[in-house]
Amino acid sequence: MENERYLELVNEKKFRQLKHEITEENEVDIASFLEELPLEKAALTFRMLPKELAAQVFAHLSLEFQQYIVEAVTDKELSAIVEDLFIDDMVDFLEEVPSIVVKRVLRNAKEDTRHLINQFLQYPENSAGSVMTAEYVGIKKSITVKQAFEQIRKYGVDKETIYTCYVTDPNRILEGIVSVKTLLLSDEDTGIQDIMDENIISVTTTDDREEAAHVFSRYGLLSLPVVDHENRLCGIITIDDIVEVIEEEATEDFQKMAGLTPSEKPYLKTGVFSLAGNRIVWLLVLMFSAMITGGILESFQDAFVAMPLLVAFIPMLTDTGGNAGSQSSTLVIRGMAVGEIQLRDAFKVLRKELGVSVLVGIVLAAANFIRLYFFQYPGNMMVALTIALSLIVTVIIAKAIGGLLPLGAKLVRVDPAIMAAPIITTIVDAFALIVYLMIAKALLKL
Amino acid sequence: MENERYLELVNEKKFRQLKHEITEENEVDIASFLEELPLEKAALTFRMLPKELAAQVFAHLSLEFQQYIVEAVTDKELSAIVEDLFIDDMVDFLEEVPSIVVKRVLRNAKEDTRHLINQFLQYPENSAGSVMTAEYVGIKKSITVKQAFEQIRKYGVDKETIYTCYVTDPNRILEGIVSVKTLLLSDEDTGIQDIMDENIISVTTTDDREEAAHVFSRYGLLSLPVVDHENRLCGIITIDDIVEVIEEEATEDFQKMAGLTPSEKPYLKTGVFSLAGNRIVWLLVLMFSAMITGGILESFQDAFVAMPLLVAFIPMLTDTGGNAGSQSSTLVIRGMAVGEIQLRDAFKVLRKELGVSVLVGIVLAAANFIRLYFFQYPGNMMVALTIALSLIVTVIIAKAIGGLLPLGAKLVRVDPAIMAAPIITTIVDAFALIVYLMIAKALLKL
Repeated sequence: MENERYLELVNEKKFRQLKHEITEENEVDIASFLEELPLEKAALTFRMLPKELAAQVFAHLSLEFQQYIVEAVTDKELSAIVEDLFIDDMVDFLEEVPSIVVKRVLRNAKEDTRHLINQFLQYPENSAGSVMTAEYVGIKKSITVKQAFEQIRKYGVDKETIYTCYVTDPNRILEGIVSVKTLLLSDEDTGIQDIMDENIISVTTTDDREEAAHVFSRYGLLSLPVVDHENRLCGIITIDDIVEVIEEEATEDFQKMAGLTPSEKPYLKTGVFSLAGNRIVWLLVLMFSAMITGGILESFQDAFVAMPLLVAFIPMLTDTGGNAGSQSSTLVIRGMAVGEIQLRDAFKVLRKELGVSVLVGIVLAAANFIRLYFFQYPGNMMVALTIALSLIVTVIIAKAIGGLLPLGAKLVRVDPAIMAAPIITTIVDAFALIVYLMIAKALLKL
Repeated sequence: MENERYLELVNEKKFRQLKHEITEENEVDIASFLEELPLEKAALTFRMLPKELAAQVFAHLSLEFQQYIVEAVTDKELSAIVEDLFIDDMVDFLEEVPSIVVKRVLRNAKEDTRHLINQFLQYPENSAGSVMTAEYVGIKKSITVKQAFEQIRKYGVDKETIYTCYVTDPNRILEGIVSVKTLLLSDEDTGIQDIMDENIISVTTTDDREEAAHVFSRYGLLSLPVVDHENRLCGIITIDDIVEVIEEEATEDFQKMAGLTPSEKPYLKTGVFSLAGNRIVWLLVLMFSAMITGGILESFQDAFVAMPLLVAFIPMLTDTGGNAGSQSSTLVIRGMAVGEIQLRDAFKVLRKELGVSVLVGIVLAAANFIRLYFFQYPGNMMVALTIALSLIVTVIIAKAIGGLLPLGAKLVRVDPAIMAAPIITTIVDAFALIVYLMIAKALLKL
């Protein structure tokens, strides 16, 4: 993309020349270019794009630009965009804009399209139905390969993918699928019913979109049919949308695991107030939870007066416990997200975590014991022993909690990603301090 | 999959019947079924699969089963597997096994295949070259649409994707691409050079595979050509491999961000010693780093003797600082991973984080001030003020560090994912305690 050259043309209002040159570019790059322009100029440039390219570019614009453009174009132009957009892109847009925009869009859609949009808007958020598209090639099993190619040639232009054809009966029940590869490698007089694959992998409209993503990556699919509860074909999901789903779901988990309210909006495009809003809830919850730990420490005040040195080990113990617990919870949360760990594996997880924590605990304790006994407080066996023992017990408790809490969350249908570093740290802190101060009281006779 | 039925057939050694029934199933499901069997029975069942299906199933088996099967089969069977496997699956396998297995595989490969495998094994780990495949449809621009279809029909059976054809000149320089969709929608006498897309999106063999994943999701591609530095076509990457790359890269980031040495092996299949090994390094590093914090606390021992209550606020302050910092670092790390945040955005990030931290800091401080001054220690203005002030300053420092450290890591070419919760917490702890104790000394005159 020669963005500078195009920018010059926009500024000199040489739109005819610009149209000539820019239409050679990829729609994604054109959308990026428009987003670098002021809204008004972007709308002007957008309106001179050829009809079909305009719809493709529209699908790749950010919400802000999409909304501005819908407001800037005439009803006729809007109608053209609506008819040329894939239904899933249209629905993505409509789900985010004010109802007045939705109404104007629907008013400018043809009846069929309006009906379809209304139907798609009803699928629950994050369901397979909400990411599917209606633009697929549907054929009947009674036709031949040659006829199938004729139908693809006739109707394929507007379809999101032509590489898989869906075979349905008169009641729209999905009977089989046949790939263009199979069609190409078959004789042209072969009947579709002889070559279609009846072993169909599909999901239901109400399934979670994450479930659909699992199916895609398990079977290495390019598209996946979505059926209703009567096995009627409702639409298809294409791999490009699933790539987005996989990235969005991972981002959501990263955010939840850092104690953030999930948001799909890019960081740089989110305002300071929204950013603060997404963070404050968990910070407040965790801050007040940490006061429980404060209460524990307050009840051991005498010990600190008798031996102020004890305070110095607190961050090391709580941090190590928190880190050990978060390691375990991260592995289990991610394992569940990619479908490797199930609820029934709880016992296996516990056994592994116990084994690991004993190993890790002993190494950490030994390292600390050597440091304390031989270097920092030479000859003070009891201090070294207190810290070493506290470390082992803390790490064992931390890893058991870290490994099991995400599974427990799943059991009560809470998102396991919540049970990550921030909460684990807070919970483990309390246990670590109780363990530490009780061991200290016993060994150091405080 | 009727796994129980198949298991029965295996146990009754009815392999002919099993072969008849199981070959109807998807190769992924067959691989899952085999992995539920003892190694020996799995190998027996594997050997009765039809040649081509066997290679497909092999690609979906875990390393352990792959290795056992390679050892169990005859040279002739091995040779068949090697020739039928896609080159990228073969290379994935060879990269993980002992050199004696590699040698046996190479000995049983035809010369062309052996040459190709050797070439692919040389691409750096995690490069675009390491995930590409050599099985693509290559055509010349001088032929017609009809001839292109003939070539696809002739050579397409063994190709990983036939939906994009790659147009190269006699020196293998990539000149254009043409999709089967375009071919199908064009007249059969049209010349390829008239319809091929010369605006090619490609990556270089040495590019990072993550970069290739970005290109896929940006442009919504199904496959991507990989060229060498002279623009000669070396292979293609298909979307199913990129879905794996995206999931693996996210998993790797989750692991790094939790202070784990990354590992691609599923949790449940990793032994206790390996799991412990992946965790101990960071735990040790962080534990010894936390001792700096211990040193800080030791130097303020007098303050704790004078006012033991001060100890009770330590976990709340350090945890809140750690959480606030991790929130920022997570957003920035993830933003960089998906390509939304660049190094040049450092100033924007800093400005946003400062704004957010002032807002968040004031809310947290106010909540604490009210709790302390009106409820927990009524009328004790100075204690409440010490905590409130420390909170604000801690949150501001934490968010600045959390936002900037990942960018700093990128600047010095360290993986930003390292700069996540565990390290941020340790660093912020030290700052939080210095701030807290200095404010306490000043306000409470200790």
